[in-house]
Amino acid sequence: MDTTLSPALSGLEPQLDQLRETGSLFYQRGWSVGTSSNYSVVVDRNPLQLVVTASGKDKGRLARQDFVRVDQAGAPMGDGQPKSSAETLLHCVVAEHVPEVGAILHTHSVWSTVLSEHFFAAGGFEIAGYEMLKGLDGVTTHETSKRVEIFDNTQDIPALARQVERRLADANPLTHGYLIRRHGLYTWGKTLDDARRQVEIFEFLFECVARDLAIKGQLAMQP
Amino acid sequence: MDTTLSPALSGLEPQLDQLRETGSLFYQRGWSVGTSSNYSVVVDRNPLQLVVTASGKDKGRLARQDFVRVDQAGAPMGDGQPKSSAETLLHCVVAEHVPEVGAILHTHSVWSTVLSEHFFAAGGFEIAGYEMLKGLDGVTTHETSKRVEIFDNTQDIPALARQVERRLADANPLTHGYLIRRHGLYTWGKTLDDARRQVEIFEFLFECVARDLAIKGQLAMQP
Amino acid sequence: MDTTLSPALSGLEPQLDQLRETGSLFYQRGWSVGTSSNYSVVVDRNPLQLVVTASGKDKGRLARQDFVRVDQAGAPMGDGQPKSSAETLLHCVVAEHVPEVGAILHTHSVWSTVLSEHFFAAGGFEIAGYEMLKGLDGVTTHETSKRVEIFDNTQDIPALARQVERRLADANPLTHGYLIRRHGLYTWGKTLDDARRQVEIFEFLFECVARDLAIKGQLAMQP
Amino acid sequence: MDTTLSPALSGLEPQLDQLRETGSLFYQRGWSVGTSSNYSVVVDRNPLQLVVTASGKDKGRLARQDFVRVDQAGAPMGDGQPKSSAETLLHCVVAEHVPEVGAILHTHSVWSTVLSEHFFAAGGFEIAGYEMLKGLDGVTTHETSKRVEIFDNTQDIPALARQVERRLADANPLTHGYLIRRHGLYTWGKTLDDARRQVEIFEFLFECVARDLAIKGQLAMQP
Repeated sequence: MDTTLSPALSGLEPQLDQLRETGSLFYQRGWSVGTSSNYSVVVDRNPLQLVVTASGKDKGRLARQDFVRVDQAGAPMGDGQPKSSAETLLHCVVAEHVPEVGAILHTHSVWSTVLSEHFFAAGGFEIAGYEMLKGLDGVTTHETSKRVEIFDNTQDIPALARQVERRLADANPLTHGYLIRRHGLYTWGKTLDDARRQVEIFEFLFECVARDLAIKGQLAMQP
Repeated sequence: MDTTLSPALSGLEPQLDQLRETGSLFYQRGWSVGTSSNYSVVVDRNPLQLVVTASGKDKGRLARQDFVRVDQAGAPMGDGQPKSSAETLLHCVVAEHVPEVGAILHTHSVWSTVLSEHFFAAGGFEIAGYEMLKGLDGVTTHETSKRVEIFDNTQDIPALARQVERRLADANPLTHGYLIRRHGLYTWGKTLDDARRQVEIFEFLFECVARDLAIKGQLAMQP
Repeated sequence: MDTTLSPALSGLEPQLDQLRETGSLFYQRGWSVGTSSNYSVVVDRNPLQLVVTASGKDKGRLARQDFVRVDQAGAPMGDGQPKSSAETLLHCVVAEHVPEVGAILHTHSVWSTVLSEHFFAAGGFEIAGYEMLKGLDGVTTHETSKRVEIFDNTQDIPALARQVERRLADANPLTHGYLIRRHGLYTWGKTLDDARRQVEIFEFLFECVARDLAIKGQLAMQP
Repeated sequence: MDTTLSPALSGLEPQLDQLRETGSLFYQRGWSVGTSSNYSVVVDRNPLQLVVTASGKDKGRLARQDFVRVDQAGAPMGDGQPKSSAETLLHCVVAEHVPEVGAILHTHSVWSTVLSEHFFAAGGFEIAGYEMLKGLDGVTTHETSKRVEIFDNTQDIPALARQVERRLADANPLTHGYLIRRHGLYTWGKTLDDARRQVEIFEFLFECVARDLAIKGQLAMQP
C-alpha cells in the first residue's frame, strides 16, 4: 500500500496503476494530449463509487495522487482529494445505467473531433461492414451497422449528463459509446481492458471513415 | 522451459517469444489494435502442425499462454488450450499449399482496410514500379506489377478458406498475400522474419497507393 | 551539481533536465526535428535572465551543456557558453511583456508550417468551438474563437522581435502564441508544464483544422 | 574491440554502433522498413574506403556484423564479409565527388516515394521559402529555392551511379541530395549527425509539400 495516498484511494493501487498505464498509452497515441481526456473505474456498486482522474492532469504522466474517489452524484468521498474532472457526472450516468460496466474512458483524438463536427448536423453517422466492429461488446458479425451518436458540446455538464442518461435508459438505448461535438469519445466496458479495446476499435474505425472521406474528396456518407 | 505452459506448447518458447515481440511491434505500428490480427508459425510438417494466436488477445501484450497448437484442420492438439483464432483455417490452408512456408501473419491496418473497400468491386488492384516491391519474396526488379487480390469478408471462414485454397492451388496461383474486404492483410514467408518483412512491404505500398489517391483527389487507379 | 557545466548554468540542473526531456518528447512527436525549435525558461526576473537552447542542437538528444544563460537583450552572460539560438530575442520579448511567464517554447511541426502558409495572406485564422481550446491559459469555454496570428518570416530577428513586441504591448494584445510563416509556433506559460500543454493544444488544433481542410478538399475557412 | 567481427570491421565499433542507432531511429520513423535503405560512413580517404550496410538486413535490428568494408569501386575488402548493398556504388560516387563527405544515407519513406513519382515527369521540384531549408548544409536563409532532382529508377546501378556522378561533377553540381523515382532519398554530410539532420530536414519538407498538395486537392506545384 502506498502510504502517501489519501485514505479514499488506499488499497486501490492496482487499479490506479492500470489507469496510469492506460493514460501513458493513450497520450503516446495522441488521444489524450494537452491534459484532455478522463478515465474512471467502478470500485463499489452498493452504493456506487468510482475512481476518476483529477482535473487538469497530464495523462502521459499520471501519479497515483491524480485520482479522486467519488459517489454516484460525482461528489468526492472524504477530504484531502483533488478536484475531480469537470465531466465526472458523465462517468456516473454510464456507471449507473449500463449493466456490469466496470470502466469508462473518455478520449479526445483528432479523428473523433473532426468527424464529430463533420456529421454533427446529421446527429451521427453509420459505421458498417467493417470486421473491426466485432471488437465492440456483443457484436458478432461485420454485417453490422453501428450508429455513432453525436451530442452537442456544452459547458452545462449536468444537462449533458441528463441527455446521455435519457439515451442510456431508452427502450432502444445508446450502446458502446458516443461522441461529443468537437470534444471526443466516451466508451466503456466490463473491465478496463474491455474499455481500452473499445477505444482502440472506435479510433481505428474513425480513422478509416475519415481517410475514406479524404480520398473521396467529397462530403459523402452523410445520411 | 516455461513450466506454466501447456504440454502442447512446451519447448516452443523461442518461437512464442518471437511472435510476442512481433505482436508488440505491430500493435505499436497500429496494425494490430483492438485485439485484431492473428499470427502463426509452422512447428511440424509431418503431419502439419501450427502454433496460432488464441482468440481475442491484446496483440501488444501477448503472453506465452496466448497461443494454441493446432493440426492441419485447425483443431487444437491436446487439452487445456485456449480457443484458437476464429480464422485459424486461413492459416492452415496457406501452411498446406505454399511450399516451405514457416510463418503466416494477418494484420489489420487502416490503409489495408480502406484500400480493400476502395478496390473491392474491381477484385483487386495493381502495385507497379515501386522499388519496395523487391522486398517481396522472389521479386528481383521494381519493373513488376503485383496484383493484390481482394476476397469478400464473410463469417463463414471454412468457405473463405476454400476460396483461398483454390487460388493457392491454381495453375496461376495467388502469391505473397491477399486482402479481405474491410478486414486486412494475410501474408507469409519461409521464416517469421520473412513474413514480417512482407507485412512491412505491403503496408508501405498500401500507404503509398492511398496517399497518392488522396493527393490526386480522384478515384483513379481503378482497373 | 554537474561540475562540467559552465558557472552560468550551475545550479540549474533540474530546469535543464526538464528542458531536455521536453526536447526528447517533441522530437519524438516530429515537432522539433532537424535541429529546429528552441526552448527557454526564465531563471531570474530582476533583472530578467533566461536559459535558452544553444544554436543548432539535436533536440532529441540535448545535453546539459547545450544551453545558454542570456540577459534581457539576448546576450550570453559570462564566458565559455555556446552560441545561443538565432531567435533568442523572440524569447526575450515574450519574457519581458507577458506577465508571470516562466517558459517559452518554439516548435516547428508540419501542420503549423502548412497552415502558416495557407492562411498567411489573411494574416491568421480563427479556431472556434473546440473543447481543446479550454487547455489554453484562461480559456474557460469551448465557445471561444481564438485567432492565431501569422507573422512573416525574416532573417532580421530584431525586426521580427519588435513586431511581436508591439502586438504583446498592444491594448488588445496577442495572447497564448503565434505562428511565423513556414516556420512554426511560439507559445508560452507560467511554468514549463504550462507551455508544454499549450504546444500540445495548438498542435492538436492545427491538425484538426488541416485534416478538416483535406477532407473538404477546398480552400475553405479563409476569412 | 568486438572479437567476433571480421578483421575488415575490427576497430570500427563506435561507427558501427552509431549506424545501428541511426537504423533503429529511421526504422521507427517508417523511413527504413522492409529491409529497405542503406547507410555508409567514410573510414579512409587514401585510398577511399567506406563501411556500408550489408544487403537485405532489417534496419531496425542491425548487428555489428551487418556491415561491409568496401573500396572506391564498391568491392568488399578482405574475405568473410557479407554481400554489400546492391546500391553500394551510389555511396561510392558521393564519397568520391563531394568534398569532406563523411556519411551517406539512403532512406525510403512514403512521402519521398509519392513525391518522386508525382514530380518525375518534371525532373524534380522546387522547395522554397521554408525556414527548415536552413538545416541544409550551407543554406543561411529561408529565402532559398532548393530544387530536388529526381533520377529514374533502374536495375542498372552502375549506369545510375554514372548519371549521379555526372551531376556531382557538373559545373553547377547537384547538392545536398536527390530522389530516385519510387525509390527514395540519398543525402549526405560531413558527419553522420550532419547526414541524419539532412534526412530529417528533407523528410519534413517532403511531408509539408505533400500535405499541401492533399489540402489543395490539385496537381499544383508542377513547374
